[in-house]
Amino acid sequence: MAYTKDDFKQLVTDIQSQDWYKNPIGFGIAKVDRGQLNKDKILQATYPVANWEENYGSAAVLLNALKHSGVEVDTSKSELVCEINDKFLEKCIESFRPYIPEAKGEEHKNVQVISTLASLPIDSGLTADNFKVVFLFEDAPAQSAETVYLKLYALSLGKAKLRTLNLDGAFGKLENCAWVGNQPIELDWLRENEIALKLSGKYPTIDMVDKFPRFLGHVIPADNTRILESSKVRFGAQLAAGTTVMPGASYINFNAGTEGAVMVEGRISSSAKVGAGSDVGGGASILGVLSGTDGVPVTIGENTLLGANSCTGTAIGDGCIIDAGVTILPGTKITLSEKAVEQLKQINPDKEIKTVMKGMDFQGVNGVHFRVNSTTGQTVAMRSTREVKLNKDLH
Amino acid sequence: MAYTKDDFKQLVTDIQSQDWYKNPIGFGIAKVDRGQLNKDKILQATYPVANWEENYGSAAVLLNALKHSGVEVDTSKSELVCEINDKFLEKCIESFRPYIPEAKGEEHKNVQVISTLASLPIDSGLTADNFKVVFLFEDAPAQSAETVYLKLYALSLGKAKLRTLNLDGAFGKLENCAWVGNQPIELDWLRENEIALKLSGKYPTIDMVDKFPRFLGHVIPADNTRILESSKVRFGAQLAAGTTVMPGASYINFNAGTEGAVMVEGRISSSAKVGAGSDVGGGASILGVLSGTDGVPVTIGENTLLGANSCTGTAIGDGCIIDAGVTILPGTKITLSEKAVEQLKQINPDKEIKTVMKGMDFQGVNGVHFRVNSTTGQTVAMRSTREVKLNKDLH
Amino acid sequence: MAYTKDDFKQLVTDIQSQDWYKNPIGFGIAKVDRGQLNKDKILQATYPVANWEENYGSAAVLLNALKHSGVEVDTSKSELVCEINDKFLEKCIESFRPYIPEAKGEEHKNVQVISTLASLPIDSGLTADNFKVVFLFEDAPAQSAETVYLKLYALSLGKAKLRTLNLDGAFGKLENCAWVGNQPIELDWLRENEIALKLSGKYPTIDMVDKFPRFLGHVIPADNTRILESSKVRFGAQLAAGTTVMPGASYINFNAGTEGAVMVEGRISSSAKVGAGSDVGGGASILGVLSGTDGVPVTIGENTLLGANSCTGTAIGDGCIIDAGVTILPGTKITLSEKAVEQLKQINPDKEIKTVMKGMDFQGVNGVHFRVNSTTGQTVAMRSTREVKLNKDLH
Repeated sequence: MAYTKDDFKQLVTDIQSQDWYKNPIGFGIAKVDRGQLNKDKILQATYPVANWEENYGSAAVLLNALKHSGVEVDTSKSELVCEINDKFLEKCIESFRPYIPEAKGEEHKNVQVISTLASLPIDSGLTADNFKVVFLFEDAPAQSAETVYLKLYALSLGKAKLRTLNLDGAFGKLENCAWVGNQPIELDWLRENEIALKLSGKYPTIDMVDKFPRFLGHVIPADNTRILESSKVRFGAQLAAGTTVMPGASYINFNAGTEGAVMVEGRISSSAKVGAGSDVGGGASILGVLSGTDGVPVTIGENTLLGANSCTGTAIGDGCIIDAGVTILPGTKITLSEKAVEQLKQINPDKEIKTVMKGMDFQGVNGVHFRVNSTTGQTVAMRSTREVKLNKDLH
Repeated sequence: MAYTKDDFKQLVTDIQSQDWYKNPIGFGIAKVDRGQLNKDKILQATYPVANWEENYGSAAVLLNALKHSGVEVDTSKSELVCEINDKFLEKCIESFRPYIPEAKGEEHKNVQVISTLASLPIDSGLTADNFKVVFLFEDAPAQSAETVYLKLYALSLGKAKLRTLNLDGAFGKLENCAWVGNQPIELDWLRENEIALKLSGKYPTIDMVDKFPRFLGHVIPADNTRILESSKVRFGAQLAAGTTVMPGASYINFNAGTEGAVMVEGRISSSAKVGAGSDVGGGASILGVLSGTDGVPVTIGENTLLGANSCTGTAIGDGCIIDAGVTILPGTKITLSEKAVEQLKQINPDKEIKTVMKGMDFQGVNGVHFRVNSTTGQTVAMRSTREVKLNKDLH
Repeated sequence: MAYTKDDFKQLVTDIQSQDWYKNPIGFGIAKVDRGQLNKDKILQATYPVANWEENYGSAAVLLNALKHSGVEVDTSKSELVCEINDKFLEKCIESFRPYIPEAKGEEHKNVQVISTLASLPIDSGLTADNFKVVFLFEDAPAQSAETVYLKLYALSLGKAKLRTLNLDGAFGKLENCAWVGNQPIELDWLRENEIALKLSGKYPTIDMVDKFPRFLGHVIPADNTRILESSKVRFGAQLAAGTTVMPGASYINFNAGTEGAVMVEGRISSSAKVGAGSDVGGGASILGVLSGTDGVPVTIGENTLLGANSCTGTAIGDGCIIDAGVTILPGTKITLSEKAVEQLKQINPDKEIKTVMKGMDFQGVNGVHFRVNSTTGQTVAMRSTREVKLNKDLH
């Protein structure tokens, strides 16, 4: 039993030194929503706190408590998903004791989760099988909805970088549900109850039908971040502080997002990302890996403007402009004047700049203005008026 | 009275042989939402079961019960819309008796409706004048909101083909309402109560103001269909199983939709339809009959890709590609190389392929890739890389 | 005390003749939503009635009642925002007495507000500090959230013309909140309660995170106006009767909107406006003052069609067409044939029409059809097929 913080540290050290123990990549306790008809289906997993490459002391306590509660803890598998029981909670409380008094606000969030769980009224329908403790030991294809959610949390909380997680098979672990706000409902349950619900005027207002929830169902954005319509950001997207997502034609898919304050009025498709200070204009499309980018995820640099209704299918550098309505795909042939070549070489000394280039050749080229000459219809590139900071370390 | 299923069949045969009887095109029992101020206004009609060219036995029972309940049944008009009363319900129950025990799940849905209605508590505000029994005998312009809804059900449930129903005058039969979830509210009621509602903090959250409800307010999609935002699909749209509607710039209007699994990230305007395996890219527009298509509804073939922010105002065949950002209107002049003409003739032996064609000339032409040459600005067509299956029966 | 309407008029005249008195530009009584954690933060102000350059008699009564209730009324400042108390309400009731019996429906709305306030049950949590009486004496930068809201009401109710109000600093006076329907919630409150809310299954469904509410949270549109998705119109936008806003790629920002019946399927950015009978096609972008229009707000004339996925960054006249997919920016070079010059001169006798013009040169030019020649890629202008009414007064 841990009476002091030193006792706690000793306890953690003891646990971590045992043979069976292994630090998890991520872990947390989730409230799960089960199917209304099929209780074995996990429709959603909500983590009040999602840990990712952090808080290993708490992880040790939770794994140890699981062992004490009678669960076989096998850390050689890629993941561990268990229901919780009273013994588990008691052991956690016992171990976390020295931290319970100060577990408030931003302090000791995992301890808060345990305290809160222990204080929940039993008769509120919050039975133990609605809570899971979840560990991810290896970034392998997820074996459960619970670990898919844990990975999506890591992305959306900004704890894991975009494109760094293994999301293979994630779709297969999620159920397609009708969502009434944050509440997922099995489609079959709706079918079974359609007649009674409709005749009694209780048919629910369904906001969407999807496998993924929405970002705002799980994540609280930064104070200076704005999302003007919840449907526009899927859970698993990542929005750096200061990002604004407008409600017109915008959308940010999972494993896609922004790396700084970005104005988003267009689409950031799955696996695409946009640098700080950039502007994705109204209706602008950044293509995803599944459509027209030959499997290479598109990165947009910093301080770059993608004009309204433009379309980008290849990486674009810093301080660039794509004019409204202009499409730059990997294979788009782009013409440059001698002057443009000269000017672009000055700020891109390491890049090969020529009078005819393809869209894909502009990867890492900064300060480019892409236009269509309205007299000739020719797609051209020139030096943009946007400021580009030359990386001093490189030159 | 029907004691056995044979009795029931005999009853149906008897009814159907009577002079006054006529099989309806569609029928069902609807719960109606009436105006809060004007009870004569039907704001919405919700059908737990909408029958369309099917279940004529149930239709006969319902029409017969109506006659017994004192309603004058005139099947020579295009439609019949009646309130229900206890006598009607009793007669229905009596007639359906042999099927009541097995009316569960997918079995005998019309019987389930009658049983459920009979079991509703009287004191729950569900008075008889909130229910209507509705028959459509002729596909004429609808004379009531109830039959407009019945037709929209037929479309959205996939029981009637897109573009096959007479929707003339449909708008005129629907009321423009404020919608709080599935609940329509008269705008005048809001005006009358605005001050009290706002001061008491009870002003409702209005999701939209429209004459039509949303698709998901009435229809449960297939298990593999996804609609990531309810507002994106209007009631009266038709989505084949496997269709996905993304929440960016997409929209599917009534009497429009998909004929197979389609990825929808753009607009399918009223009366347009898209074939199986096709992809409507982010922000792509398929024009409707009211804007730029000269009244000819646009059909997109199978396995065709409409690139992001492309625009299509004319029919496109199977296995085609319209590049991102490219617009093909009926009058768009399109240039083909001799090689392109040759290649397209091979897979379209019956079509006239020339070196200069207009957009509208490509109706039924398969395997075309529409591009804008980024060096010359010329809109061109060539053989696409998409597979096209030549129709063996024709050649 | 006012016993008769003549007494009332005398009372108003007396008040208005006093030295301290000044007619306000706008005024009203607002219910305010305060921060859940920080009660000093005003998250939203809801006006059941917003007066703008009207109802000066009511203004006089309210200001006078404020003075009697002990408030120091200083009309030399640009605005006055006060909490209300019982004395204030009593004085208002006393003064409005002759109008109270007939204050119903559309009659004497300010009197209705006072009557309703006086009748609210005290124990309903509607304490006096949730209500503010607000006066704007000068259209200076707003000093409070309450006056920002009053200005947004003036715009959205059509009482002030678009672009005529001083909105400087408006963003700074509004709090970025999570919105659950019409209810704003401090992000910090969500953070403090995240663990308890999530574990108990009570985490709220957040519809958006923004400083502004939605138009439909405060304004009841005209009977023939349609807004198919609430998120598509920000509070502060102005929609003339008969406007339809579709749910695809559309958006209307604050201080932007329509001046007659307009079909909106695209974006009307901040400070842009569109004339009666015009059509903003699916995904069409009208640029705002912050992006590509050099700070000149864009006005679209009457009876003009902006095709699907077109983009407009400069003023366009009456009876014009921009083809689907075509972009007209201020600097776009546009070519006209001699015939087009001739035809456009006929309906634009006062304008300079030349064979080469820039987008910005078309300001006030009517009847223009903007196209891209699909054979040459050249952006051209010709006479549109749309009717243009020549202003008889001018010629």
